[in-house]
Amino acid sequence: MSVELEGRHRSVLRLAGADRGAVLLSSPEDVRWCCGFTGSNGWLVVQQTRAVLLTDGRYVEQAKGEMPSDVEVVECRTSTAMVEALAAVVVDGPIAVQEGHLTVSGWRSIHAVIGERLTAAGPELSHVRREKSGDEIDAIRRAARIADDALAACLGLFRPGTTERGLRDALESRMRELGADGPSYETIVASGPRNSAMPHHRPTGRAFESGDTVVVDVGALVDGYHSDMTRTFFIGSPEGEVVEWYRVLREAQAQAVAAVGPGRAVKDIDAVCRGVLSTAGLDGWFTHGLGHGVGLLIHENPFINATSEAVLRPGDVVTIEPGLYRGGFAGMRIEDLLLVTDDSHEILTSAPKDPTCPR
Amino acid sequence: MSVELEGRHRSVLRLAGADRGAVLLSSPEDVRWCCGFTGSNGWLVVQQTRAVLLTDGRYVEQAKGEMPSDVEVVECRTSTAMVEALAAVVVDGPIAVQEGHLTVSGWRSIHAVIGERLTAAGPELSHVRREKSGDEIDAIRRAARIADDALAACLGLFRPGTTERGLRDALESRMRELGADGPSYETIVASGPRNSAMPHHRPTGRAFESGDTVVVDVGALVDGYHSDMTRTFFIGSPEGEVVEWYRVLREAQAQAVAAVGPGRAVKDIDAVCRGVLSTAGLDGWFTHGLGHGVGLLIHENPFINATSEAVLRPGDVVTIEPGLYRGGFAGMRIEDLLLVTDDSHEILTSAPKDPTCPR
Repeated sequence: MSVELEGRHRSVLRLAGADRGAVLLSSPEDVRWCCGFTGSNGWLVVQQTRAVLLTDGRYVEQAKGEMPSDVEVVECRTSTAMVEALAAVVVDGPIAVQEGHLTVSGWRSIHAVIGERLTAAGPELSHVRREKSGDEIDAIRRAARIADDALAACLGLFRPGTTERGLRDALESRMRELGADGPSYETIVASGPRNSAMPHHRPTGRAFESGDTVVVDVGALVDGYHSDMTRTFFIGSPEGEVVEWYRVLREAQAQAVAAVGPGRAVKDIDAVCRGVLSTAGLDGWFTHGLGHGVGLLIHENPFINATSEAVLRPGDVVTIEPGLYRGGFAGMRIEDLLLVTDDSHEILTSAPKDPTCPR
Repeated sequence: MSVELEGRHRSVLRLAGADRGAVLLSSPEDVRWCCGFTGSNGWLVVQQTRAVLLTDGRYVEQAKGEMPSDVEVVECRTSTAMVEALAAVVVDGPIAVQEGHLTVSGWRSIHAVIGERLTAAGPELSHVRREKSGDEIDAIRRAARIADDALAACLGLFRPGTTERGLRDALESRMRELGADGPSYETIVASGPRNSAMPHHRPTGRAFESGDTVVVDVGALVDGYHSDMTRTFFIGSPEGEVVEWYRVLREAQAQAVAAVGPGRAVKDIDAVCRGVLSTAGLDGWFTHGLGHGVGLLIHENPFINATSEAVLRPGDVVTIEPGLYRGGFAGMRIEDLLLVTDDSHEILTSAPKDPTCPR
């Protein structure tokens, strides 16, 4: 096993509070991070001197190709067999599981076999993938670049008559051509006074009209790693309140970005952003969290909002994405992806923020 | 609320064993089926005379647009707020939750607020979406047709030099052009003696070579409903053992399909298929389950394997997909999507099963 993977296993054991015991990883992203296995069904048992993957017959060959040779593979044909294999691999001592991922049914079926040896891993385990390695940052950087380039290639489509679905298809095709494994999540193209006011609108056949705002939330997937970016455009010549909204939103986003750095409490960054919106009387239209971590999952720790106690650390990759949404009027969002560095941050998104479309 | 949705709510309460209480649906597909809401974060509280959706600010506008007006929406800014809202909506009596979906953390956070009022819904609730309505069958039928047509349009690519990723991209683009919202799952294109032997292989840059088997597992997504289909092709002129394998596999798949009908135990259908393979001495190479239900989820009840106690019913939509996989030699799988009818079944997949490529 590589030194890097060994280090990850030690981190898992330490954060789970299971230095001398065993940890059962059930989250696919944590499993992948610890051994390279990318299948949809696998439990990784991590102990100080051993790691064992339990999976089904669809994935045995694949797992052997993806993992270091010293991670053992046990084929389990049913979920009952997986629990029995777990008990056979860890014959005594506690087994710590991921409460934030394991279902109640899963807990009960394990408990039925190993009884009180079943324990909950410490909550810090859900932060174990936060500090991105050089390879992870490279993959995210490539994903962000692909989304930037795809958007740049599609700027000519921001004109009356283009449909939401048409723009989505063009963006996703272009990302594939640029080397993405696919979109990072369901690409959002939300246009006009109703659709743009829904933060997670799904693209429809609606055609853009002059006077619309169009929100595009798009990312690429590269080697399992995600990017995440949002830009808002005006169709035609905007005027009046919507221009002022955009000016305030852009300022709020920029100030929040400027506040990102190691040691910063995420709730303080959230407060910076809401402060700018509040001064303009617009904070009531910002109805979601400010951002989230990004990596093997599109939404992961640290989440950035007013109630989290998280503090940023070097290696965190996070979004900053305030939005304003008033149904019947307009919606808009601006989102960048940032890497927290040793002394500040680096913005991984480079798409311009000029909302006016090329003519 | 429509008569159809009212009936679904009654089914949920009955199968959960909560006729006079409340059920908390946390599975996004069950929530969607019961109220139309398609967001990623929503809890639906179902009671005899009332239904309430708890969701966050990203989805409030969207939810109001998607749901009947008599399903109430409560905005919850944090997961803590969602639990508090749940307790406020159901002020007394038991609340039954979905043990197969809710996480251990979710259970604990609800238990901390409502204590012993928290109960587990009966396991039959996980079968509530099995009997597809006419509209659901129409959507699945359209999805299956789109995948059939996309594959037909790409037959010219089954020749030396085409890459796995190239074929995947062509299939997915064509499905979009034909009206799909996207692929139903990660499209599988697996070629040659190593890749085709991995049932859930992810497409790579490998180019097809003469003598390869190529496994294509592709489906379309239409209005939230999935299709699922697999075909295996030979590149060039196959000969010897691989031809015999395919003949046996096709016979095993056909006999299993013929066994599908209402009242049939799924384990008996599994046995029919394995019997054919066993007679030819090939059953050891069939390393996964025979099939699964398909609907708002790509894998849902009823699962078809040797250990399930499920019995098919009219309205079930299921796959029949045996495969044979020997690393270094070849892999192959044949999969159809079937609707269980009142007296037999209807095959929803129409792509031909001739494995020889057009020249």
